[in-house]
Amino acid sequence: MRSFAEERDWDQFHTPKNLSMALIAESAELVEHFQWLTEEQSTQLPSEKLKEVEEELADVLIYLVRIADKLNVDLAQAASRKIDINEKKYPAAQVRGSAKKYTEY
Amino acid sequence: MRSFAEERDWDQFHTPKNLSMALIAESAELVEHFQWLTEEQSTQLPSEKLKEVEEELADVLIYLVRIADKLNVDLAQAASRKIDINEKKYPAAQVRGSAKKYTEY
Amino acid sequence: MRSFAEERDWDQFHTPKNLSMALIAESAELVEHFQWLTEEQSTQLPSEKLKEVEEELADVLIYLVRIADKLNVDLAQAASRKIDINEKKYPAAQVRGSAKKYTEY
Amino acid sequence: MRSFAEERDWDQFHTPKNLSMALIAESAELVEHFQWLTEEQSTQLPSEKLKEVEEELADVLIYLVRIADKLNVDLAQAASRKIDINEKKYPAAQVRGSAKKYTEY
Repeated sequence: MRSFAEERDWDQFHTPKNLSMALIAESAELVEHFQWLTEEQSTQLPSEKLKEVEEELADVLIYLVRIADKLNVDLAQAASRKIDINEKKYPAAQVRGSAKKYTEY
Repeated sequence: MRSFAEERDWDQFHTPKNLSMALIAESAELVEHFQWLTEEQSTQLPSEKLKEVEEELADVLIYLVRIADKLNVDLAQAASRKIDINEKKYPAAQVRGSAKKYTEY
Repeated sequence: MRSFAEERDWDQFHTPKNLSMALIAESAELVEHFQWLTEEQSTQLPSEKLKEVEEELADVLIYLVRIADKLNVDLAQAASRKIDINEKKYPAAQVRGSAKKYTEY
Repeated sequence: MRSFAEERDWDQFHTPKNLSMALIAESAELVEHFQWLTEEQSTQLPSEKLKEVEEELADVLIYLVRIADKLNVDLAQAASRKIDINEKKYPAAQVRGSAKKYTEY
C-alpha cells in the first residue's frame, strides 16, 4: 500500500486526518448495504451483495492499515491489547446476555 | 473474539447489520480525535493522544474482523483482491499527484 | 451559532472540512444509541434514552446549520429542491414497498 | 416527507435505527467531498462541487427531520436547548481560541 501511494504521488494526501475521513466514508458504504435490511436479512446476503460487502470490508481494512502505518502503530498488538482491556471491562459473569454499555454497570 | 462474544452471550446482538453500526461508531471516535487538528498536527500526535488513537484503531479492527467472521469473508484475501482492482482503476502513470476520484478520469 | 463560535474564537477551526468531521462524529453518537437495539426497540425508547437521543439530533442539526452557513447554502431551499428530485427518482407507483436503490430500477 | 414515505409504502423501513444508518451514510457522502481537500480548499468550493455538497447537506437534513418526526422530537427546541447547554459547558472567557474538549478543562 505504501508503494501504491508513492507510485501515484498520493502520499501528500495521506495524512492521518484525511485517512480517518476516507476510513469512515468506506465504513459508511458498508452501513449503506445494511440500512434497509432486517438484522435477519443481513445474516443471509445473496452472493452478489456479499461480493459488494466484501469489497467494502477490504476498503476499510486498506485505510485502517494505511493509517496505522502512517502513525507507526502495530495494529495486531493494539487489537490484542484492546481485547485484554475489554475482558476486564466486561466480565463475562456480569454482563452475560446484556448489551448495556459498560459504564452502566 | 468469537469466544469473547459467546462467553457473554453477545452473539445474538452481533448481526452484520449491528456490527456495521458498531464499526462506524468506532471509526467516528477516530475521526473525533482529528477533527480540530490541522493535517500537519495529525501527523505528530503527542504520545498520550497517540495511545488513544491506537485504541480506536484497535476497536475498528476488532469489529471489522468480527463482521468478516460472521459473513465468512476472508479479509486478507478480499483486501489483496481490492488492491489489484485499485491498481487497474488508478494507473500510476495517469493519476500521479491527483486526488480526483477515478470516475473523473 | 455564529456568535457562539466568534465569542470563543473558534471560527478558525470551523472550516467546512472540519465541520463535516464534527457532523459525522455526532451522527455516530446517534447510531451508537441504536446499534444493539432491535428496530422495534428503536421505536419505543425509554424517556431517559429519548432525552439523550434528542441531544444527539440537536448536535447534528447544529453542525449542519453551521456548515450551511459557512458555505452560504440555504438549507431549507436545498432540502425542498432535493425532495423534488427524489419525487422523480422514485416514482411512487413504481417503487411501492421496495427499498431497492433507485439505480436498481 | 411523511407523505413521501407513505405513498411509497416505505414507512415500514423508516425505524429510528434504520434512519440513523441512512443519516450517517449521507453524512459520509459529505465527508467524502472534503477528504482530500485542504481546509483552505474546503472553504472555496468550485460551483459544480458546491452544488453536490448542497445536495448532501439536504439529504442529511431530510433524514434528520424524518428521525425527529418518528421520535416526536421538536428539533428546533432540542437545538436551542443544546445551545444553552453548550454556552455553559464552554464559557467564552475560558475556552477562547482553544479546541480542547470541554472535559479537558
